[in-house]
Formats: sequence, structure tokens, C-alpha cells
Amino acid sequence: MPRIRFLPQGITVEVPPGNTLLQAAARAGIVLKGACGGEGVCGRCRVQVQEGKVTFPPNPRLSPRERQEGWVLACQAVPEGEVVVFIPEGSILTAHRVLKAEEGLLLQTKEPLWWEEKLSLSPPTLEDPTDDWGRLSWALQQKGISLVWPVRHLLPELPRTLRAADWQVKVELAFLDKGLCELQGVKPAGREEGAWGVAVDLGTTTVAAELVDLATGQVVATAGTYNRQAAFGDDVISRIVYATETPRGREELQQAILETVNGLIDELCREAGVGSDEVRAVVGAGNTTMIHLLLNLDPTYIRLEPYVPAANAPPPVKAAKLGLKAHPEAWVYLVPGVASYVGGDVVAGVKVTGMGEEEELTLFLDIGTNGEMVLGNREWLMACACSAGPAFEGSGITCGMRAVAGAIEEVEVSPGGGEVFYRTVDGKKPLGICGSGLISLLSSLLRAGVIDRSGRFVEGLNTPRLREGVEGKEFVLVWGESTGHGRDIYITQGDLQNLLRAKAAIFAGLRTLLSLVGLEAAALERVYIAGGFGRFIDVEDAIGIGMLPDLPRERYAYVGNTSLKGARLCLLSRRAWQETAELARRITYVELSVGNLFMEEFMAALFLPHTNADLFPSVKGA
Amino acid sequence: MPRIRFLPQGITVEVPPGNTLLQAAARAGIVLKGACGGEGVCGRCRVQVQEGKVTFPPNPRLSPRERQEGWVLACQAVPEGEVVVFIPEGSILTAHRVLKAEEGLLLQTKEPLWWEEKLSLSPPTLEDPTDDWGRLSWALQQKGISLVWPVRHLLPELPRTLRAADWQVKVELAFLDKGLCELQGVKPAGREEGAWGVAVDLGTTTVAAELVDLATGQVVATAGTYNRQAAFGDDVISRIVYATETPRGREELQQAILETVNGLIDELCREAGVGSDEVRAVVGAGNTTMIHLLLNLDPTYIRLEPYVPAANAPPPVKAAKLGLKAHPEAWVYLVPGVASYVGGDVVAGVKVTGMGEEEELTLFLDIGTNGEMVLGNREWLMACACSAGPAFEGSGITCGMRAVAGAIEEVEVSPGGGEVFYRTVDGKKPLGICGSGLISLLSSLLRAGVIDRSGRFVEGLNTPRLREGVEGKEFVLVWGESTGHGRDIYITQGDLQNLLRAKAAIFAGLRTLLSLVGLEAAALERVYIAGGFGRFIDVEDAIGIGMLPDLPRERYAYVGNTSLKGARLCLLSRRAWQETAELARRITYVELSVGNLFMEEFMAALFLPHTNADLFPSVKGA
Ligand code: FES
Ligand SMILES: [Mg+2]
Ligand SMILES: [Mg+2]
Repeated sequence: MPRIRFLPQGITVEVPPGNTLLQAAARAGIVLKGACGGEGVCGRCRVQVQEGKVTFPPNPRLSPRERQEGWVLACQAVPEGEVVVFIPEGSILTAHRVLKAEEGLLLQTKEPLWWEEKLSLSPPTLEDPTDDWGRLSWALQQKGISLVWPVRHLLPELPRTLRAADWQVKVELAFLDKGLCELQGVKPAGREEGAWGVAVDLGTTTVAAELVDLATGQVVATAGTYNRQAAFGDDVISRIVYATETPRGREELQQAILETVNGLIDELCREAGVGSDEVRAVVGAGNTTMIHLLLNLDPTYIRLEPYVPAANAPPPVKAAKLGLKAHPEAWVYLVPGVASYVGGDVVAGVKVTGMGEEEELTLFLDIGTNGEMVLGNREWLMACACSAGPAFEGSGITCGMRAVAGAIEEVEVSPGGGEVFYRTVDGKKPLGICGSGLISLLSSLLRAGVIDRSGRFVEGLNTPRLREGVEGKEFVLVWGESTGHGRDIYITQGDLQNLLRAKAAIFAGLRTLLSLVGLEAAALERVYIAGGFGRFIDVEDAIGIGMLPDLPRERYAYVGNTSLKGARLCLLSRRAWQETAELARRITYVELSVGNLFMEEFMAALFLPHTNADLFPSVKGA
Repeated sequence: MPRIRFLPQGITVEVPPGNTLLQAAARAGIVLKGACGGEGVCGRCRVQVQEGKVTFPPNPRLSPRERQEGWVLACQAVPEGEVVVFIPEGSILTAHRVLKAEEGLLLQTKEPLWWEEKLSLSPPTLEDPTDDWGRLSWALQQKGISLVWPVRHLLPELPRTLRAADWQVKVELAFLDKGLCELQGVKPAGREEGAWGVAVDLGTTTVAAELVDLATGQVVATAGTYNRQAAFGDDVISRIVYATETPRGREELQQAILETVNGLIDELCREAGVGSDEVRAVVGAGNTTMIHLLLNLDPTYIRLEPYVPAANAPPPVKAAKLGLKAHPEAWVYLVPGVASYVGGDVVAGVKVTGMGEEEELTLFLDIGTNGEMVLGNREWLMACACSAGPAFEGSGITCGMRAVAGAIEEVEVSPGGGEVFYRTVDGKKPLGICGSGLISLLSSLLRAGVIDRSGRFVEGLNTPRLREGVEGKEFVLVWGESTGHGRDIYITQGDLQNLLRAKAAIFAGLRTLLSLVGLEAAALERVYIAGGFGRFIDVEDAIGIGMLPDLPRERYAYVGNTSLKGARLCLLSRRAWQETAELARRITYVELSVGNLFMEEFMAALFLPHTNADLFPSVKGA
């Protein structure tokens, strides 16, 4: 069997004869780029054979010199015997970087927000006739749990419960605040029952949730869906307008998000074979508006200067009172936010990256419906929000979609626009384009000369893909005959302008923040990119369109949906929950609408990659 | 106008000509004894004229020598001009001693369990866009109030509330635990509304309550009634049996006490013209069984060895959830108890006396349905309970009643039992005998030779008052023609045995406690007598029957219903509430049923005053 060693990873795998290097890499856990899906036409899966023999057909994407140096396209190269293959950085899809806090996630499952404590009580005697509740409280105090409130139905039957269990019990506790717990149940120590928690990322456009085994910390099911509030407006502002100007608008919006989350909880529980009343705690992270609408807090002043939320850190509420499906006593915890436009989703993300405890100057960038970012390190942290719109979440784009199966997540357009290669999530027939696909598309259209640096379709291109649509020019990526739904997948001039504004807002926000502390982008030692816009983001493409600063690529890490991860981290760790609340208080909010700085930066960024090409020295033709 | 100076009080009063010294003393605020109501026949209102002139008719109660020394009966003596009168200790009804904590009651109204804080918030700006809830929390934190939970309906409308009040607000706070408060309301600072609290003494036989103005600390109304649970049994044991052995017995008993308290709250509110929803906090003090039955806690193990309550210190509960009439958010606080038979009523009393902070060896004695006592000082405190039965609360005695208008509270029987002099509460026509009247009666019957030292009616007495009743001999105090209801008021042989057992239980309990610490009664430097059995207790009579030890009389003080006073103290002072909880933990409970000591003492005390006459040197004929 052929045996391939991949460098610089140092991983060796064996594959069946006839497998390609692309397949071998996949077996090694290395995901190579490949927009054409292994057709040998997009040319993105280049690797260099350093030792051994591979069969590789001629291919116009490689020059004779490159071939001589051992370069091949992994999707076409079949190894024989022992082979050593070098994979350049540029051929790897930026993988999730395993974050410090993420590593710790499994270690911190010993102290979830809801947990059980085993107590071995000594039975009362005439010498020690302490009351039952006092005996229990004392035993808890010995474990450092001092201020405990029992749920209403517990004390009345405590005497029989304790005696039936022969004083060997398991108590159920919910953390409420520093030194304040709720005692939710007392059971015989022997009885084994499962307990689950739900972590939710409450996004404006999409909502994602995980079902977590509170005893082991394992994620047993995940689910995601569109936020049903989308029917009332694409972005937070239109939702607030609806909530505040429509009779019963707040109630309608609350109902919509409750139904959304309840749908996910149903789905998670069904998948895991768990009853929703076995969900003992829910942690939600979302932007400030989402939290207001979930709790039905008046959001009026979020959108009126000086942009003041009702509450950044609302106390936990009972799921039953709120209307969420869970155990009758379960609490819903909301990760605290910083300001009206920097919410708990961002704070959760910052917590997950660990940047608040590190020395390096770090940028955390959450690209959801809004572009929010946090800059700083363990000494200081500042944040801002720029309205990027929902484009990167696949919304507000004609053929946009979430990064689920069938979403185009990577695109390569041939020069002149005649051919389009793409890769979809899970390799399914294409249904639309997700966030990462849009960035890839924008970058590729520019390189292929289909659009100019102002984002407009170039005149006089000779390809049937560029056609006149109802609202102006549009470019067809996939013809209906090849799509999952039989309709063409295309991008319009309006879509392009939306994308341009979205990327410009993000870059302008970063420039503003940096200039407030007198730093240049080059000072950034680490950039974490979070957001639910795709499984992977191609940093090269994002720099290519001027959305991200032109830094050495290894400083970038894509960290996935850190809002969800942070919610899970809090769910599984009382310490993390408290540290996250503390983190929210530490972050200083910068309001971009004050002064002209942001608007000037925004205007300058409405160009591919930027009006000032010096900012992007590594981008060809910038 | 005659002018009288009373000694040793040093009080001078002027009275209209013709007034008696009894009337003059009353004007001076000195309540003299006088069972005959000023007829000059009971001879208890003796005073000594030291200077000046009084007219005083001849009276067989005074010897010629006494008359020569200036002794007169105050009810018959009319002063002329300037007079100086000495009042011996024995002629004064033991007045309420003003207790340390009681003096402090008015000073501590600044920190009730429910209160309002005025907050002057600075309006948000772009420079300080703190969220509304954060702004409010911070302002509270500045006042030392750090862990605050809002009631559910508060956060949603907080933004409008704060802006409508122009950021000058009054917040309503309920204390829950050390460093934990509930925020119940936010209102414009200007609006003036009253807030009341209710203090309740939850007695087995009687329930008493006060309506207190939380802003001023003033008691605005008081009310008392029988506990409706009495229908299910006289004492705590029979109630527990009913609760645990009757289907739905616990619910029935809970309902009965809730109706009792609600009736009192209605009465208080009607009297004061206050709505029951303006009652913002309720503090209850009662014995451990009463608290269990109020909260519907399983009381089974209170009466089974080793006598363990479900909870000595149950956390506060919402009045609305419990079923008490009050503001929807009001909390009900129960003063913590020590053990199954030493409850929060006793702890409240100990707190009110201040004995836990003093150096002197003190005895606190609460004579209600049970006789509970606490012995000790600031170094140590120990407690016990002896089943005295409900006799001193007027229950279990044929013609017994509570100390309300028409209750005989003082009795003097002439030698041989021919005549009976009495005084009723408020001077109304007699309806029955209350606890203090019963003690006075027992003592007087013994002195008059109507009963012997074993408490039995003497044979061969020639008075129609001693007659044969349905259940043996009985002695008529008041004939039906003079009573308020037209029926005779009398005492039976069975009643006398009940009283004897009750007094014996109390004395035996004290002896047991003292012997455990190796002390004699003489070591007691102070004795506080609490209980709702009458307005005044005559210490002389109580010593005369051997209920109280033969100590110098000035060491005694009757302190009234300290359970109710303690409940009020807690209601008006968060500090007192916390100190009282701490006090409950400090008191060591002694179980009298362990060993034979108590039973031996009890048997020895079933004699008037006692089998061992040496214990009562000052009692004549003992
Ligand atoms: S003798 Fe004066 S009141 Fe009875
Ligand atoms: Mg998000
Ligand atoms: Mg009492």
C-alpha cells in the first residue's frame, strides 16, 4: 500500500492503491483547497512531491518549471510506494485553531452551572438533633457552598426524602451568583440520572445550539436554524423598530425567538434521545438586541443616542417563566454584554480566545450580521461595532444561504469569467452561497477580471454567465441544470455592493480602533476570526478584497462560532461564567458614530482592496 | 388642688379635690393592685402617707398599728393639700420593664427588612452609555447594596421608568440574606406612598399581630385572636398527630393558620385604613411546630425521638405563594428557632431582652402553651421546653379565656372562700379568667384556705361558692347575675390540677437546667417573664404557688409578648434580623426527656408551693 508522509505536519498515512494525494491528505486530517472538487481545473490544491514517485497527468495549471520542481495538483496525483509531500500554507484551508480555552473545555466540566453533589449525612441523634435543613446546609457549607436557597417544593418533604435515602443523598444545585445557589432537588445517592445543558448562540440571522452532557462535558448534539425573527426585519435596527412601533411587537418578536430556540431544543433532544425536561440549564450568548428581545426588555434606547441598553447583564431567569422548553426549575443564563452594539456573543468569543489573559496585542473579529471587534490584551481591551449587514450570514444576498450542506463555500472563476469552479459544504449539489463562498467569490471575480476595483461588472465581457437581470447585471455561478433546486445560482450588482459595504465597514472599524490607540495594523500579533459565515474562511481571499489587514498569514486563526463555544464554556464552568461577566465589565466600548473618523475610513475602504494600495503590499494588482 | 408626691418614684401630680390616692397614682402612671376594684375590701392597694393629710375611713384590713404608721388603702384615702405618699413594691402591679432592645426599636427603624432608597442617577451620555440596569446596580453598590435581584416584571420596563422619572428615583428593596436583596420597584423620587409591615406572634393557642409603619417604626394597629388550628387539637403534639395521620391534615392545618393570620391582617388594615397590598413584609415568630404547619413542612419527626424539625431556619417565602394577604411581592420571614421545642418565638424574646449580650446570669421564661426557657448570658445560652399545657393561655380551663376585655386578671378570695374580689381587663363585666388571673386565683385560694397544698378543695367549707359540679367539686368566682354573659364563672378541681401541673412543669424545667450547669436558683441575677397570658403577672402570686423561684422580687421583670416584639424588631431592623438568626445558632438545646432528672423535679413540684419548703423561705406557711 502506498505510504505518504506529509510535511510540515509530519503525518504519515497509508492509502489504497489508486487514491489521490488529495484523498491521502484528507485521511491525514489535512483539508486542502479545491474549488473544482478534484477536477484538476481550479489549480488550488498544489503540493510538492519531495521524495518518491507519483503519477500525474499533464495539466495547463502548472508550468514546466513547476512540474520539474515536483509541483503537482493533489487531486490528480496518485502516489506509488513511499512518498514525501510538502504542503504549502496557501494550499491548506485555514483550519480551526485549537484555542486555549477550548482545550480547557474538557477540563472544566467538573463545575458546571448546574451540578450534583453527593452528601453523606450523619443521621440525627439525641446528642445531635440538628434540623434536617440545617444538617443539609451545613454539609453543603463544608463543601464551600454557603448561601443556598431551596426551591419551594423541597423543604416540605425533606424529612421523608432524607430518611428514605438513609441520609446518603445527591443534591441538585444551580449556580445563581457568587456564593448564591439554588437547591433544586435531593435524591438517593445511588440513583443515576443524566443531566444536560443547552448552549445557544442567539444570532440575528441564525441561531445555533448544542446539547451538552453536564456530567462529561461532551457535546451530544448540535443544531442550527434561521432566527424566526427574520420575518420582522433583517438587522437589529429593523427589529427594534418593529418591536417598538408595532402594537405587541415586542411580544411577537419574543415569541419568534422562543419558538426558534424551542425548535432547536426539540431537535437536539430528539437527536440525542433526551427529554427536554432533562435540560437543567441553558446558557445563551447573543448581541444585546437579541437578548433584549428574548427577555422582552424594552429595546427602544438601543437605537437612540446615546445608545443605552436596558441591561447588559440581566440576571438569570427561569426557563419555565420565560417560555423555553427545559426542566421546570432550569435557569437561563445570558452571557453579559458590553454595550448596545457589543453583546455577550462577542464577550463569549473573547473569553474563548483567552486574549484577555495574554500579553500579545490581539484582534478578535466576529463577523455575523454586525461586524464587532475587540482589540487589546490582558492590560486593556476596547471594542467597537460596525454595521456590516447580514451579507456574511448569507442573508441580504440574492442567492445567499447559511453554511449548511449544499452551500457554495469556495469559488474559483476562470479569467474572463467563462468557467466557475466551486466546492460545496458536504459536496452536495449547490443550493446557494454562504459567507465564506461570497468572500472567495468576490476575490476571484476581481482576479478573473469580471469586476473592477470598485466592485462593478466590467463592460464588454464575452460570457453568457454575465447577463442582464431584473435589477441590473448579474453573474451566473451555476446553471439550474447543475443545482440542487434546478434554479440558477448567481450574484447581482446589488449583491456585490452589499458585500463591498460589508467588508469596508469591517476594515474601517479596525482602522478606527487602531488609530484611537495610535497603532498600525502591523502591530497586531494575532487575529482571531469568529462568525458563523462558513466552516472555513480563506484569509488570502479576505485580504485580497481588503476586508482583513495585510498581515503575515500565520497571525490569523479562524475560531468558528465562539459565541456558541463561549456559551458552552460558561455552561460547563461556574468559574468561566464569573470570569466572563468580569471580562464584559473590563471591555471599553468605542462608539464609532462619534466623530468623522469611521466614516472617512469607510469611504476609503469601498474599493478592492482599498483606495490606499500601500496598505495591501502583498495583494497583486492592488 | 391637692398635690401628691409619690415615692420612691419621685412623681408629683395634682388632682381634683375628692379624688382618691388610687386615682392620683393612676394619674402619675403608677398602677396599684386592687382586686376589689376600689371597694376597700381586698386590701391590696396599701400605701403609706409620709407627709400631709388624707381622710381615710376605718377599715378592718389595717391594724391600729399600721394606721398609726400612716398605712392606708389608696382606694379609700382622699388627700388634702400637699401630701407625700410611699408606695411599697408589693402594691404595684409589676409593670412592663422597658427593655434595652425595646428602647432601641425606634432607633432602628432606619433599616427595615423592606425599604426604599432614593437614588439620583446621572443621565447617560455618549461618554457614559452604561446600561440602565448597570447604572442602577452601580448606584445601589455605592450604598453598600451589592447583590440585587430584580423582580421579573421590573427590567422589561426599566428604560421608560427611569426616563419618566428623569433619573431621580426611589427603589423598593427587600432584604433576603446577607448581601442579597430583591429589587421590587422603581418609582419617581417624588411620589409619596406609605409602606407597612406586619409582625405576627404565631402562638399555638393565640395569634397576635401588629401593623407597623415601616417608615416611622410606629405600631399603627394591633390585633389578636385564637388560632383556628385549635379545632384540631389544643397543643402542638395533637396538631402534629392530626397533620400526619389525617389525609390532607397538613393542608387543613395550614389553611387554618393562614385564615387566622389573614383575618388579623384584614382587621389591622381595616383599623388603620391601609390596603393589605400595602403590606410589604411580614415577620412571624412562633414555635417550631407552628412554623412547620404554616409552611406545610412535614412535622412528623418533631414528635419522634430524637425530635428533629424539618427546618429551624426556613428561608423567607413569598406571601402570595404561601397564601397570605399582602403585597404580591412581599416576603414572609420566620424568626429562626433552636430545636423542635424551642422555636423562633423564644429566640425573638431572647433577642428583645438583650440577655445574649449581657454579663448577668439571666433566665428568660416564655409561658405560652409550652413553657420554654433560656438560661445564660453573653458567654453561653441553653434552652429547654416543658409541656405546661395551654392553661396559662386560658385554654384547657373550664372558664379560661385570653387576656382581653372582661377577663379576670387578678383575684382575691376572702378567708374561707365566702367573698371573691376581682379586677377585669378594661374593667368590663367578667367573661372568664385569663392566665394571670389563674395564677392569682390559685395563690389566693391557697391563702384563703379553700384549697390545700396539694391543690384539692378543703373538705367541710361552709360557702355556697363551693359546690358539686358535673365532674366533681367546683368553686364559683362570680355568679351569673354579675357576669357579662349571665353564666357563672367557676374553677373546677380538674382545672386546679391542670394549673398545678403547668406550674410544676415550669419550675421543674428551671431546676433541671440549673442543675445541669451546677447552679442554684439564687444565682439568677435577672428573670424575664414573657407570654401572652395577661397584661401583668403578679410575681408574688407566682412565687406563692411555686411556679417561679423565691428570688428578691426586683430581679423579676414581666416583658409581655416578646415573640411579637421580637418579630417587630426584626421587621424594623435588618441588623436585628441577622443577629437574631445568629442567636438561634448560639443557643444549646437541652432535651428534658433524656434521663430522670426532669420527671423527679416535676413530681416534687406538684405541691403548693413545693414539696421542699426550704426552696420558698419567703412564702408564708410553705
Ligand atoms: S382595697 Fe383598695 S382596691 Fe381593694
Ligand atoms: Mg454571531
Ligand atoms: Mg407564645
